[in-house]
Amino acid sequence: MHKPMAVVCLSGGVDSCVTAGLVVQSHEPALLHVNYGQRTEARELTSFRQIADFYGVERRLVVDLDFLGQIGGSSLTDPAQAVPEGDLGRKDIPSTYVPFRNANILSAAVAWAETLGAAAVYVGAVEEDSSGYPDCREDFFEAFRKAVALGTRPDSKIEIVTPVIRMSKADIVRKGAELGAPFHLTWSCYRDERIACGECDSCLLRMRAFKQAGVPDPIPYRKS
Amino acid sequence: MHKPMAVVCLSGGVDSCVTAGLVVQSHEPALLHVNYGQRTEARELTSFRQIADFYGVERRLVVDLDFLGQIGGSSLTDPAQAVPEGDLGRKDIPSTYVPFRNANILSAAVAWAETLGAAAVYVGAVEEDSSGYPDCREDFFEAFRKAVALGTRPDSKIEIVTPVIRMSKADIVRKGAELGAPFHLTWSCYRDERIACGECDSCLLRMRAFKQAGVPDPIPYRKS
Repeated sequence: MHKPMAVVCLSGGVDSCVTAGLVVQSHEPALLHVNYGQRTEARELTSFRQIADFYGVERRLVVDLDFLGQIGGSSLTDPAQAVPEGDLGRKDIPSTYVPFRNANILSAAVAWAETLGAAAVYVGAVEEDSSGYPDCREDFFEAFRKAVALGTRPDSKIEIVTPVIRMSKADIVRKGAELGAPFHLTWSCYRDERIACGECDSCLLRMRAFKQAGVPDPIPYRKS
Repeated sequence: MHKPMAVVCLSGGVDSCVTAGLVVQSHEPALLHVNYGQRTEARELTSFRQIADFYGVERRLVVDLDFLGQIGGSSLTDPAQAVPEGDLGRKDIPSTYVPFRNANILSAAVAWAETLGAAAVYVGAVEEDSSGYPDCREDFFEAFRKAVALGTRPDSKIEIVTPVIRMSKADIVRKGAELGAPFHLTWSCYRDERIACGECDSCLLRMRAFKQAGVPDPIPYRKS
């Protein structure tokens, strides 16, 4: 039977890798990766390619949104700012927030989906356990869905699906383990490209999730 | 007195030029131009630069969204498809529609606005007299406003302003003439970069608007 097509935003991290693992069960995936000048851009692109190879997906698009790095405003893209040590108790928006990044990624994904005639765009955003970025919250995606419905051809009907948004990161790891997702190919660290630092927010969230899930994390850390 | 800053999406056409003319009265403008692989990209960029010079605006950003052209789906970006002769009575969405283009442009503009601490993003979209693109309609912008409010920092408060959306193109030309907007520097033609064809939708809409407004159009046409 012919499966419907879906664009999957695949950064190369755990959440998007598990999202891809879910999508391959029900859809014919088209994998989108966005470079936006983040400091671990090359490493994330390698993860994207290896995960795409793992799932045998040929339909891939790599989009350069370098201007998101050029305009600054984030320690994730500005070499002059240090990525801070992680603090999972923090309530404010951390300096790694990249202004309106997810809207830029989603807009690219929807444009591609409309061209392909795809039925959906899947995004591995996580609300609860995220770093407090405003564009990772369910109400942002709900508003964006309306913009998609109104701003594309009436017959396009592209769904925006966030299958893991309400899950804890530990549950995402459990789900990935169940699906046989290639965690050994993923990259989460915000700071380094060779060996994960084990200290930034993204490393701390990942390490805690694997620990809580009782699943061994297959990648090494400089400090753990 | 210190004026608030506003990002203006400036394609180099009549509508965005008049929008810039409105913004310079009340705001300190930051001018954004987007290349997306459209066939008259180089000519539009020249218009952007000349209009920015005319208004003496130094704060400029040129963003390349080449993937919008690469993914295809539009006669505006695909050299293998011809831009059709204009037909202002048409009711369907013409082949020059670029999938979800305005969301991609707006997302870039909002990211820049958030980094700059700007109060608003101005877009010269026109609903009534447009070519029927879904992402030029007021309800699309209304949905996008919600996504911006929810997807940016709570203290960012970036307004999305479409000052000419309800105006006819003739009224926009009248307003521009009143403001002394540099129509001689604008470019509208979808087909050619040297001399406007006078036959595509965009030329037909422009020519009709100047005629209805009783304002001489300062640019020459190959066929008029």
